[in-house]
Amino acid sequence: MLLIVRDEIEKILPSLDLMSAIEAGFVAYSKGHANIPPVGELVLEKGEVHIKYGAISGEDCYVIKIASGFYGNAALGLPSSNGVMLLFSQTTGELLATLLDEGILTDARTAVAGAIAAKYLAPSDIESIGIVGTGVQARLQLQYLKPVTTCNKVMVWGRSLEALEKYRSDMSALGYDVTPTQDMEKLAATCNLIVTTTITEVPILKSDHIRPGTHISAIGSDTPHKQELDCTILAQADCVVADSIEQCKLRGEIFKALQAQAISGSDVMELGNIISGQQKGRTSDTDITVFDSTGVAVQDIQIARAVYEQAL
Amino acid sequence: MLLIVRDEIEKILPSLDLMSAIEAGFVAYSKGHANIPPVGELVLEKGEVHIKYGAISGEDCYVIKIASGFYGNAALGLPSSNGVMLLFSQTTGELLATLLDEGILTDARTAVAGAIAAKYLAPSDIESIGIVGTGVQARLQLQYLKPVTTCNKVMVWGRSLEALEKYRSDMSALGYDVTPTQDMEKLAATCNLIVTTTITEVPILKSDHIRPGTHISAIGSDTPHKQELDCTILAQADCVVADSIEQCKLRGEIFKALQAQAISGSDVMELGNIISGQQKGRTSDTDITVFDSTGVAVQDIQIARAVYEQAL
Repeated sequence: MLLIVRDEIEKILPSLDLMSAIEAGFVAYSKGHANIPPVGELVLEKGEVHIKYGAISGEDCYVIKIASGFYGNAALGLPSSNGVMLLFSQTTGELLATLLDEGILTDARTAVAGAIAAKYLAPSDIESIGIVGTGVQARLQLQYLKPVTTCNKVMVWGRSLEALEKYRSDMSALGYDVTPTQDMEKLAATCNLIVTTTITEVPILKSDHIRPGTHISAIGSDTPHKQELDCTILAQADCVVADSIEQCKLRGEIFKALQAQAISGSDVMELGNIISGQQKGRTSDTDITVFDSTGVAVQDIQIARAVYEQAL
Repeated sequence: MLLIVRDEIEKILPSLDLMSAIEAGFVAYSKGHANIPPVGELVLEKGEVHIKYGAISGEDCYVIKIASGFYGNAALGLPSSNGVMLLFSQTTGELLATLLDEGILTDARTAVAGAIAAKYLAPSDIESIGIVGTGVQARLQLQYLKPVTTCNKVMVWGRSLEALEKYRSDMSALGYDVTPTQDMEKLAATCNLIVTTTITEVPILKSDHIRPGTHISAIGSDTPHKQELDCTILAQADCVVADSIEQCKLRGEIFKALQAQAISGSDVMELGNIISGQQKGRTSDTDITVFDSTGVAVQDIQIARAVYEQAL
């Protein structure tokens, strides 16, 4: 059994072609070639644990990911997220590797999904990237967009002026031209690629100000309670894409819009089908497109496998 | 994170008071103090994976166990069972320990459950122990009965003469007086504590020959398909005890007997309630009692915690 710790994983990550690996994962998933049981959940007094697991047919490994959020950890000076991924042989069941990633692989595979969505759904001319939120995912989404667009104009929205300034300063150091704002209308009027990364339960992005041609990747909501987009955005969009239709019927923006009867199930496409060309996403530069990310075990399988193979 | 490998676990096991720990686990479970989500299952081409997990309120750890059976492994010279147990903090979610037990902790906690059932349900005078099967569990069940009875007379049933002779020889070396047989009727007529440990799907122990006063621990069946006891045994028993009523309604001997309408749900007691004295199991030395073991996550939690604390 190979034990791979966070430091090693951090060193390995930049060398991996995660876009290709995770695109292949989404395609396998949408083609029905992945065996992904329902997410296991354990709700404790001080935190929540999610178990995502499954296997892609014909691959060597099956993967089990345990990810948790303990929201009192900040007060203890500890990260709230925790995680470990286990790779087992699909042939013999042997444990091949334990990836003590402490949640960074979940962060990375989520950012990669955003980049894949932008690659297939964003308008051809991205004028300015709008980032909603200032946390880890707000940073990673921008960084992982590098292979997708040369646009370096960024507008970032946040509630805390201090966090906004920190984001501006950190991302400027990476070569981005960052304008902080607390005015969401201004962000929507300026940017035609918007990535939302907050944990809000009250929608903060409204349909009124979305520009024609905009693509929105809604990353933050992955539960039945969280919601970043006003349902009307999904109702008015020309194209709504789920990472997993099955999962998005139970959680995330699509769940909320279905519940509000703003959209119907048949309006929703699946990312793997867009990647494989089986479904057509954006059809013109004025289409509004929305991607809803809830996080699927195929992403975990593919990133864990890529790290493991590189470590070998 | 503490990594504990099989060799260390084997050294630690004999020093542990597993009976007490697992009895406490069953009691907490039956009192509703354990949070045990449904078993996660992943069915692959060459094997099956079960994820059992949960937490007991007020304890330090939550535990996730991954156990698999890959039935083609024997041909590759590998054990068919595999397993790993992970202990996490219930307070912060941190991974505290990985127990690379390769399934031996599942074997041990299953044998301990058999011993606990015998302690509370077997007749006061055990004349001869009947073991059905000759595999790992057939050996461990006998060994873990040591603190429960001084009886060393054993009759063992098996299909293979070679395996029977090996069992006789190995167990005789441990001080048992072992009589091999291929006649189940003879075993039932001789023994008043019977432990069945096979993976048969066709019942092999029949009601006709069970002696008054006998206790039977049915260990082998833990799926909706496996069945070792003729349903009439459960119908005629004075006392039928599940490790988990909820789980036994879906798998094991009780599931089969309910399905055949040989018993009704209200006939079934739960081991934790017998241990705590809340329910009365055996009421006389002529009662026939049956314990159905399907394996509950509280057993995994308790054995993992005991190993971890000792390793610290």
